[in-house]
Amino acid sequence: MLAEIITIGREILTGKTLDTNSNWLAKELTDLGFKVKRIVVVDDVAEEISQEILNSIKYGVRLIITTGGLGPTFDDKTLEGVSLATGRKLTLNPEALEMVKERYEKFYKEGAVSSPEITPEREKMARIPDGATPIPNPVGAAPGIMITVSGCTIISLPGVPKEMKEMFAQYVKPKLQEFVAKAEKKRVIMEKIIKSGLSDESVIASIVKKVREKFPRVYIKSLPERFGQDVDIEVRFTAEGYSKDEVETQIKGAISAFIQLAKEYKNKENRRLDK
Amino acid sequence: MLAEIITIGREILTGKTLDTNSNWLAKELTDLGFKVKRIVVVDDVAEEISQEILNSIKYGVRLIITTGGLGPTFDDKTLEGVSLATGRKLTLNPEALEMVKERYEKFYKEGAVSSPEITPEREKMARIPDGATPIPNPVGAAPGIMITVSGCTIISLPGVPKEMKEMFAQYVKPKLQEFVAKAEKKRVIMEKIIKSGLSDESVIASIVKKVREKFPRVYIKSLPERFGQDVDIEVRFTAEGYSKDEVETQIKGAISAFIQLAKEYKNKENRRLDK
Repeated sequence: MLAEIITIGREILTGKTLDTNSNWLAKELTDLGFKVKRIVVVDDVAEEISQEILNSIKYGVRLIITTGGLGPTFDDKTLEGVSLATGRKLTLNPEALEMVKERYEKFYKEGAVSSPEITPEREKMARIPDGATPIPNPVGAAPGIMITVSGCTIISLPGVPKEMKEMFAQYVKPKLQEFVAKAEKKRVIMEKIIKSGLSDESVIASIVKKVREKFPRVYIKSLPERFGQDVDIEVRFTAEGYSKDEVETQIKGAISAFIQLAKEYKNKENRRLDK
Repeated sequence: MLAEIITIGREILTGKTLDTNSNWLAKELTDLGFKVKRIVVVDDVAEEISQEILNSIKYGVRLIITTGGLGPTFDDKTLEGVSLATGRKLTLNPEALEMVKERYEKFYKEGAVSSPEITPEREKMARIPDGATPIPNPVGAAPGIMITVSGCTIISLPGVPKEMKEMFAQYVKPKLQEFVAKAEKKRVIMEKIIKSGLSDESVIASIVKKVREKFPRVYIKSLPERFGQDVDIEVRFTAEGYSKDEVETQIKGAISAFIQLAKEYKNKENRRLDK
């Protein structure tokens, strides 16, 4: 099942902030069984956010997770972007408003804010697209949202990593597990890394080419970190499918074919060096 | 000037690797005076790489920097993607081949590879789109490329951060400084002042607001010198860009929209006064 991650925020595009959210989410989504097709960083501009959501939908993506742009300030444009893309108007959601109120009452009691009053800026965070479900934020103030339109579920989470991770773990992950379980066929992704015994990536490439002819469904990638005579380059074998046994058979077959060819190469090399 | 960064590699999309290249490049490009519009991470699939390049071109981006996918293995698809997007066939480039040869001779002398021979896998790295200029790689083996098609310059660099940064600093940055300096020289600022036929600045303000919705790139300012019933307030229209035609079109469009709305206002006013 295809998924995409959209990171929203000018601070990422200027290089001021390193986006670690999408890396964290990519890992989570991959573990859940999604295939992340793209990660896109866009500016705080409603039309550009909408454009990328529409691109994702066009590419057949079933799940989009956005991070950032949910706060109270004028340049928090994510929900406007979602609204534009989905054609669902932003309206004050009573449940979301309750969440925001509760948070500010708590912040007020803790002395973190000077008033619990729901100003227009605070109320803005409860204006969500029609038909969306608000997601509680147990750390910050802005609720997230979840909305499904034309077969694509869009989940918007805040950009503050602590808020995003907590909301994902508590509310989003369980939903996605259901989502994936409901999908008729669950995708299995399996991965194995071996030490190739080889130090030359171009030799590995020629072996990989031969192995792939026999095992086209196994994705094989060498992981060179540095050049040098004694380097033992690691090679990663990845395969996916709908049954664990089938995927395992594919990976095992590809690895033993690889090891066989690597052995043959080394024997030939040794004979050459012996001369 | 708009720029985009395209990071290529499945390992980023699974969350295995944190993409720090795009953050580093975003900072560099911002410092050089570019506005980074999007950062996109895509899979090692030629069609998907091509799709994102075409999206960038559609969005009016003048510079695209890609990282990753230039190596000798079958899943290094970047140049195939660039070729698809630009319609320029991949052909063996003698200069690039020389670069690759030189690198493998060096690696061989250092004992890093067992042969300096140019295998098909190694030769692959010198097959670049027609019309592209190869960029030397002083750290690894794969050359980068630079190619300009329909007003957009595409620069492809390796994904290994040490190689990417060294190539950027030594070869790309000086080119981009020239690029920016040349563009700055070509930068057109155009200004036109019209007589609005109106004497009330608040009326003008409401018209300007409507015009700016349609022509957000035109800066419009009323120039009231004195207030009075018979005053015909002047309005200044300013726009800037990299092409005279484009800037002129924007200004002319904004002026005629303004005149139309001013006329409508005056007609309404006259009808009101006639009563």
